[in-house]
Amino acid sequence: MVGRFRAGGVSAGIKKTGEPDLGIIYAEKRATAAAVFTRNRVQAAPVLLTKNRVKAGSCRAVVVNSGNANCCTGGRGMEDAEAMARSAGEALGIPQESVLVASTGVIGKPLPVDRIAAACPALAAALSSEGWPAFSRAIMTTDTVAKMSSRKIRTSDGECTIIAAAKGVGMLRPDMATMLCFAATDAEASHDTLQAMLQRASDASFNRITVDGDTSTNDTVILMADGASGVSVERAGAGKVFQEALNELFIDLAKQMVRDGEGATKLVEVRVEGASSLQDARRAAETVADSSLVKTALFGEDANWGRIMAALGRSGAEVAPEKVDITFDEVFLVRGGQWAGEDAEASATRVMKQNEFTIRVDLHLGEGADHVWTCDFSVDYVKINADYRT
Amino acid sequence: MVGRFRAGGVSAGIKKTGEPDLGIIYAEKRATAAAVFTRNRVQAAPVLLTKNRVKAGSCRAVVVNSGNANCCTGGRGMEDAEAMARSAGEALGIPQESVLVASTGVIGKPLPVDRIAAACPALAAALSSEGWPAFSRAIMTTDTVAKMSSRKIRTSDGECTIIAAAKGVGMLRPDMATMLCFAATDAEASHDTLQAMLQRASDASFNRITVDGDTSTNDTVILMADGASGVSVERAGAGKVFQEALNELFIDLAKQMVRDGEGATKLVEVRVEGASSLQDARRAAETVADSSLVKTALFGEDANWGRIMAALGRSGAEVAPEKVDITFDEVFLVRGGQWAGEDAEASATRVMKQNEFTIRVDLHLGEGADHVWTCDFSVDYVKINADYRT
Repeated sequence: MVGRFRAGGVSAGIKKTGEPDLGIIYAEKRATAAAVFTRNRVQAAPVLLTKNRVKAGSCRAVVVNSGNANCCTGGRGMEDAEAMARSAGEALGIPQESVLVASTGVIGKPLPVDRIAAACPALAAALSSEGWPAFSRAIMTTDTVAKMSSRKIRTSDGECTIIAAAKGVGMLRPDMATMLCFAATDAEASHDTLQAMLQRASDASFNRITVDGDTSTNDTVILMADGASGVSVERAGAGKVFQEALNELFIDLAKQMVRDGEGATKLVEVRVEGASSLQDARRAAETVADSSLVKTALFGEDANWGRIMAALGRSGAEVAPEKVDITFDEVFLVRGGQWAGEDAEASATRVMKQNEFTIRVDLHLGEGADHVWTCDFSVDYVKINADYRT
Repeated sequence: MVGRFRAGGVSAGIKKTGEPDLGIIYAEKRATAAAVFTRNRVQAAPVLLTKNRVKAGSCRAVVVNSGNANCCTGGRGMEDAEAMARSAGEALGIPQESVLVASTGVIGKPLPVDRIAAACPALAAALSSEGWPAFSRAIMTTDTVAKMSSRKIRTSDGECTIIAAAKGVGMLRPDMATMLCFAATDAEASHDTLQAMLQRASDASFNRITVDGDTSTNDTVILMADGASGVSVERAGAGKVFQEALNELFIDLAKQMVRDGEGATKLVEVRVEGASSLQDARRAAETVADSSLVKTALFGEDANWGRIMAALGRSGAEVAPEKVDITFDEVFLVRGGQWAGEDAEASATRVMKQNEFTIRVDLHLGEGADHVWTCDFSVDYVKINADYRT
């Protein structure tokens, strides 16, 4: 239970399986709203609509369907996104302009708006302050587990809470999954403050994970604040702890996504230090984390540092091969660009048998440091993605 | 038989399997030489040595080992690369400075130079003008077939020939494979002309293939010309037909590599037309060709155009989604950014059952056009790369 928010989820028949596929979050009182979206140039209709509506700085509800992305659906796609908001608005007795929308699922097929309209009254009736788990189940696609997290925040002005539900098992599943996250808090915030905090938290979390290096057409993160707690994050002290809690919450959800990555068996933090610049550190970490050869070696629990060296070398970051150190957790596997020997490799191989560990690269060139989270690349990833639509 | 070149290959015991692993090409008369190398910032010792020696503009021999990349081997790596050239030079009775070297195989382990030195006399004795197949077998790593091609060129000044042997089943196998190509011709050319022609042919071929989007630390392409045919490619007419033949030859070899890509079952040309610029066309084609989700869909023979749209959207190229057309061979699957329907999809699925086909994207924004070749991403790719060293 967070502020005056209520949530819920039902089966509207969009998914052939009959599983829940329509969810809603409702703010009893108009809530300040902020959002970030995919940077893909191909953007789904609900992304375009919500991007426009969130400019008002506040909203009353977010309605989300899974099973259909409403993307590459032309002019009809935009009408359908509006119709979805209208149906939800009517069922809730609020203006349709105050309803944000998001969709996730298969690209290029028309959204079954009649089924959504028919399900909206039941959805409104199902709303409850305890409805977040039902909501989080309704937004799943190829996710194997529902993803939720919450944080209670103590400030000098009193307590407030943030709760969030997310879905996503890769940066791109145009087919049947994309990354979505919906968060609500009873803190009080202006739109501008909320937007800045949301952007920072997303950068620290969702923008640092990769399952397959792709970016979806539907990614959306929305944060709503209804002020019910009376705690304002506009004050420096409260703002700082709120931002920390929001970052933590989003990192928790981001890691849940990578752990649930399609076919993934491991969560690996790739940390690059000593880079010439922050940008170089990020670029190097991302190239290592995205390399199919590094990721298949993670799956095979093979401490194949040559693949890491090669990825660093092609990353575009400044690299002096003879300076590079690589550690797997606390084990030095490479020192000064050279192999640390059989014993080190045996120890590194033991590190890799864990479900979670850190690969740390020190380039010894400067102060730039950054990190990303990735997963391994398994036989199941290929099976899931080769066979999905057939 | 090309000019006065002789080639051969033997087993030096670098590979544990006892398969051929040391090859040589010998020019009876000093040959003009040109070379292009990996752009990876981590470069193997033989790359650094050969890069330096080829500046002389000519050479007498190229000695190549498989089974060990001599990369990330520190100062000793450079001494070992020189020792390898010295052993070959002594066996052939030529100055060691006139010997170029290349290595391919596992990264980070010292090169067994003693075994190489011991095998050089046998290698020199095995040289023959018909030794190209033996040479091409000796440079294989995870390749399943040896890769050779040749072209006879008719010019107004007479005939000349180009022959080439190559290896590689991906842009990067720092573990046990990288892309190497060695070509010889009896045409006559200056170093500068040969270098320019080699660069153009490499751009048209090896720089347009991807198996896994990685770039190796050892990639090397060398072209030698001994002038034995008396045909000079310095003349405009002969130069043009020679360049065309060289491009064709390299494209043939590049396609052989993609067909033999680790786990690959299909060779697909991704062609982007109507881009705002040549750069945009290349970027869009590469992003589609490298997308793990597109490549797994190719393996699954699933005409999943949503993944192609999403890859285009994140490629950095200018894309107006509502203008995009996508065809699979002659089948229009997407028109104006939207699905062409069930019948089109059924036809596209039939196209995908072939071993080779073309995905053509028209962005309808300008005149930029480019293409790359890729393969599918299979369960076997993951198995090969997860289990390789174990």
